[in-house]
Amino acid sequence: MSTTLIGVLGGMGPLATVDLLHKIVEETPASRDQDHVPVVVWNVPQVPDRQQALAGTGESPLPMLLHAVRQLNRLSVSHIVVPCNTAHHWFDALAETSDAPLVHMADATLHALTHAAEIKASPRKIGLIATHGTLNAGWYQQRFATRLCAETVVPDEQEMATLFVPGCYAVKRGELSLGGQLLDRLAAQLVARGAESLVLACTEVPPALHAVASRWRTISIDPTRALAQACVRLWQQR
Amino acid sequence: MSTTLIGVLGGMGPLATVDLLHKIVEETPASRDQDHVPVVVWNVPQVPDRQQALAGTGESPLPMLLHAVRQLNRLSVSHIVVPCNTAHHWFDALAETSDAPLVHMADATLHALTHAAEIKASPRKIGLIATHGTLNAGWYQQRFATRLCAETVVPDEQEMATLFVPGCYAVKRGELSLGGQLLDRLAAQLVARGAESLVLACTEVPPALHAVASRWRTISIDPTRALAQACVRLWQQR
Repeated sequence: MSTTLIGVLGGMGPLATVDLLHKIVEETPASRDQDHVPVVVWNVPQVPDRQQALAGTGESPLPMLLHAVRQLNRLSVSHIVVPCNTAHHWFDALAETSDAPLVHMADATLHALTHAAEIKASPRKIGLIATHGTLNAGWYQQRFATRLCAETVVPDEQEMATLFVPGCYAVKRGELSLGGQLLDRLAAQLVARGAESLVLACTEVPPALHAVASRWRTISIDPTRALAQACVRLWQQR
Repeated sequence: MSTTLIGVLGGMGPLATVDLLHKIVEETPASRDQDHVPVVVWNVPQVPDRQQALAGTGESPLPMLLHAVRQLNRLSVSHIVVPCNTAHHWFDALAETSDAPLVHMADATLHALTHAAEIKASPRKIGLIATHGTLNAGWYQQRFATRLCAETVVPDEQEMATLFVPGCYAVKRGELSLGGQLLDRLAAQLVARGAESLVLACTEVPPALHAVASRWRTISIDPTRALAQACVRLWQQR
C-alpha cells in the first residue's frame, strides 16, 4: 500500500467537502478505481461557525478542528487539506499539532494561477471573492503581491453586505441558483474595476457560479480545484 | 457532540462514494452547516477489483475491507455504510468484525420502496436492474419476496448482453445519452413484463436515465439515495 493518504478536514460546509472530493476524482488521470487518490475524510459539520467566531459573536472552532486533526493523524494520513478558506485562520495552530503536514489553499491557488493556460499569463489585477475573514487575513493578497507582483481587487463593504454574504448563505441553505445570481453580479463588478482574473476563495462560490453557468468562470481560479490538483500531485509524486 | 457518526466504507469506485455524500447533503433538511450529518469517509480505491475476485480471476478485497472497517471503528463511528452493491458480498464478514453496525443497501432500499409516495403502495412485481454479481447474490430478490411478498422481474441473458452491459459501459465512457437510451429500453421491457416499480441497483443507471429524462424514473428507486436517506434517519433519531 502506498504511503500517500490524503486527510481531508472537511464539513465546513459539507457540500464544499463533497465538491473537493469530486474535483479530486475529476483531476486524476485514471482508467480504473485503483488509480484514484486514496483519501480519508473527516466531514463533521458540527464545527462552530468560523465567520461568527472571527466576528467575536461565536465560540472558537479551534478545539473541534484540533480534534479532527488528531483523528486524521490516528489513521496515519500523509498530508492534510482543509477545504474551507476561512478555517485557514487556524492553519498554523493545526499545522503545529499535526504529524502530517498541512497544505495551504492559497499556496495551491498560486500554483494553479501560474500554471493555468486559460488565465492571462501575468495578470496585473486579480479579483478576490472571499469572506471578511479571508480578506482581512491577507493570505491571498500577500502572495499575489510578493510572488506575482499583482494587485488585488476586493469587494467593498456594500458589495460584501448585499452580494457576497447573502449569496454565500443562500448556497449554505441549498439555494444555489439565488446564490449564483448574487455572486455572478459581484464577479462582474470586480471585472468592471479591472480584475483580469478572479480567485473564488470561498468554497460556496464555484458551485454557485456553476449553477447559473456564469461567464466569469473562464477567467476564474477555483481554490478548491487547485487544492484537488495539489492532492493529485502528491499522489503522483509518491 | 452527538453520538451519531456515520462511517462510509467507500472508494468502490470513488465517484459512487462522492455521489452518496452528495445525496446525504441533499436529503438532509438543514439551514446551516451544523444541521448536517456528521460523516467519516474511508475513500481508498486501492481495494482489489470486486468483480474479478467474484469471477475467481483476482485477489480478494476482504483484507483491505476489514482494514477499512477497523480504521473507521478506531474513530468511534456509530454505523457503517458501503456505497457499492457488489461489495455487499463481504457484508457478513465485515459486520462480524465491526463494533459499529453495518447498514445493508438492500434494507435501505426496502425502506425507500415502502415509503416513496410516488411508488405504488404494494407493488406485486418489482423490476431489478443490476450487475450479474448483484443479481446472482439475491439480496434484493429475497427481501422483496419475504418482506413485501413481491416477485422480482430481472433482465434475461439477452437483455443483459444487449442492453444492460453495453448501457453501463457507455456510461463509464461518458456516453450518458447512449447509455440512457439502452437502459431506458431495458426499463421499458421490465415494465412490459409487469414491473410496477424499478430498483436501479447499479450506480451507472440513475445518471443515465436522468440524461435521457426517462419516464421510468418516477417509478424508480435509487439504492444510493435510499442509503443516504437511511444515514439521515440515523442522524435525526439520535
